Amino acid sequence: MINQDAYRLGSQKSGIRELFEFGNKRAAEVGRENVYDFSIGNPSEPAPKEVNEAIIDIISNIDSVKVHGYTSAQGNASTRKAIADDMNDRFDAGLTEDNFYMTCGAAASLTSVLRALTIDANTEFVTVAPFFPEYSVFATIGGGKLKVVEPDIPDFQILFNKLEDAITKNTQAIIINSPNNPSGVIYSEETLVKLAELLRNKSTEIGHTIYLIADEPYRELVYDGAVVPYVPAIYNNTIICYSYSKSLSLPGERIGYVLVPNCVDDWKRVYDAVAGAARNMGYVCAPALTQLVIERCTKCRPNLEAYAKNRKLLMDGLAEAGYTVADPAGAFYLFVKAPNGDSAAFSEIGKKHDVLLVPGGSFGCPEYFRLCYCVPEDMIKRSIPIFKAMIDECK
Amino acid sequence: MINQDAYRLGSQKSGIRELFEFGNKRAAEVGRENVYDFSIGNPSEPAPKEVNEAIIDIISNIDSVKVHGYTSAQGNASTRKAIADDMNDRFDAGLTEDNFYMTCGAAASLTSVLRALTIDANTEFVTVAPFFPEYSVFATIGGGKLKVVEPDIPDFQILFNKLEDAITKNTQAIIINSPNNPSGVIYSEETLVKLAELLRNKSTEIGHTIYLIADEPYRELVYDGAVVPYVPAIYNNTIICYSYSKSLSLPGERIGYVLVPNCVDDWKRVYDAVAGAARNMGYVCAPALTQLVIERCTKCRPNLEAYAKNRKLLMDGLAEAGYTVADPAGAFYLFVKAPNGDSAAFSEIGKKHDVLLVPGGSFGCPEYFRLCYCVPEDMIKRSIPIFKAMIDECK
Repeated sequence: MINQDAYRLGSQKSGIRELFEFGNKRAAEVGRENVYDFSIGNPSEPAPKEVNEAIIDIISNIDSVKVHGYTSAQGNASTRKAIADDMNDRFDAGLTEDNFYMTCGAAASLTSVLRALTIDANTEFVTVAPFFPEYSVFATIGGGKLKVVEPDIPDFQILFNKLEDAITKNTQAIIINSPNNPSGVIYSEETLVKLAELLRNKSTEIGHTIYLIADEPYRELVYDGAVVPYVPAIYNNTIICYSYSKSLSLPGERIGYVLVPNCVDDWKRVYDAVAGAARNMGYVCAPALTQLVIERCTKCRPNLEAYAKNRKLLMDGLAEAGYTVADPAGAFYLFVKAPNGDSAAFSEIGKKHDVLLVPGGSFGCPEYFRLCYCVPEDMIKRSIPIFKAMIDECK
Repeated sequence: MINQDAYRLGSQKSGIRELFEFGNKRAAEVGRENVYDFSIGNPSEPAPKEVNEAIIDIISNIDSVKVHGYTSAQGNASTRKAIADDMNDRFDAGLTEDNFYMTCGAAASLTSVLRALTIDANTEFVTVAPFFPEYSVFATIGGGKLKVVEPDIPDFQILFNKLEDAITKNTQAIIINSPNNPSGVIYSEETLVKLAELLRNKSTEIGHTIYLIADEPYRELVYDGAVVPYVPAIYNNTIICYSYSKSLSLPGERIGYVLVPNCVDDWKRVYDAVAGAARNMGYVCAPALTQLVIERCTKCRPNLEAYAKNRKLLMDGLAEAGYTVADPAGAFYLFVKAPNGDSAAFSEIGKKHDVLLVPGGSFGCPEYFRLCYCVPEDMIKRSIPIFKAMIDECK
């Protein structure tokens, strides 16, 4: 006898996984260079050189027992202080090391917060499409569930009347992801101000705090001078989940944090509950060497110029071919309207041309598909005529 | 509103934590060298030199995007194959990479397995004292609970009639930890054969498999030629939870695995459920760089001679002072009978002498206390007269 939910989660293949395997099969048949794989959200730029320099310096010069030993559960105080200092420099945020809980990446940050905020099986979390599909997996970690609200297409901001309808007395938190995977869209200051007003009113109405969980792994990946607002300054009851997977190109190293600022109601109790949830799941501490690396690299960024160049190439090419693309101010994705209005069917057309794109159904937007532009520049250039042929097939 | 169980887990200070803070306070007053801290189970020997050499070689010579990128959820196939090869060399175990699921350490291995095996709120896991206190935290991860069976004192093997009484139709697994924290005792082949017989009979009686979870982070830390049997060869339905925290002195790096051998009933379904449970908790993959390091270091061991020397010094000194010590064939702990029969009270006597020892109540054995001999040799030598004075106080 085994847990059937766990078995289902472990045995089901995701659509992205199936695309990946299709891509491997085709690469074996026609050559890797002839498969146009836009499906994987893996940073294609290396970590900034300071990261590997820090690793070598730490390993060469610090006592091994100290480098590889347990840290406290919340992480090294010096690492957390370095992160707080950087956030204070940028956002005048008034944070200290006590506001940060180091985690094994954004997924661990999210499950720790979601479990900490789950009261019972009635607990609801609400997110706005398009959304990272694993939210629906993570939301169940304490027995709660996820509700998804349709977005304001084509701007991909929030339809506030729909969000308001989705909030009930069981709503514990709203999850936002800005810059967004899969759309690349950043929520505007105006959107966040309206969201804050709604959440303040609804919190009063239902008689308990509705938290805002800001999942921000793409915070540092923005283009054309776009600004990602510091959300706790707009809505006090904001808990930030962060990861260095994208901003330092370290997705495999599993490093991030939960930030519970003092402006959150009962912030210390919330922080302790996050710590307890992490402990319950077996998160002993975030990887120790990588904590020391982060401490030295809070100001580093990956090669955003390369992403920006790819982004422009692909956006311009798609626009010229006749596609409609959401305004992708951040992250490294384009969210594109399927010319035939059905992204699952359009993905099949793509496969006939060895172009791999992710249909938007699992993100809650079946009319759109996601392209990740973390790919070789040359591949983008060669793909444009093919995207043109694909749109022509739909006419 | 927050989850009260999570808050309790995150805000309660453990006894070991309080000892740690007492030690810091006393160190500030009397000097660190005059505090005899035997309370922390942190490896005191550095990682083998091959570990840091591997880190520097990998960072210097392999493409950064590959080193720090996501691995598959179950871990690099090449890492898992290297581990399988090593286990096959040592135990003729017939394993392949498909039997291994890489995790963020033993705690993550345990929570993944326990969640995968939890059916509902009636699910029971059983362990035998003395036991690692976090088992009772981890056992609740899917809503189940832990039952603790008293041990066969002073041998610290299993009282089979007590274990049999504890097994019900809701028993999903027995958790064993050999070599044991806190006792250092290794379960003998004879004990494991009897355990296997009991579990086979009880599985038949209750109509479903009772799994054996072998938590083995201390498997490689053994002395005087002691042997740790390969448990799946004795009881087929054994799932091994492993960590490199102790065997490679890497506790902060969070790296280990779950091993589900083919001899486990429906092993692939169990494996998939472990994967699904890990996914549900937000474990995306084990740290990527460290996976590559493990691949190169499966044959490495820490400086066991240093531990063996400390062990002998402390055992001999305590015996001469009149203490009774469990036979510590492995790990790096001694489990010592409190001369006054009450380890909590005896720990207070220790504190008066600035000797920090962990009372056994939280391990399920209140008459015993734990000493960790991962400490400077000189500290052990200087502590012996003090232990003598402490036993004299109880006369």
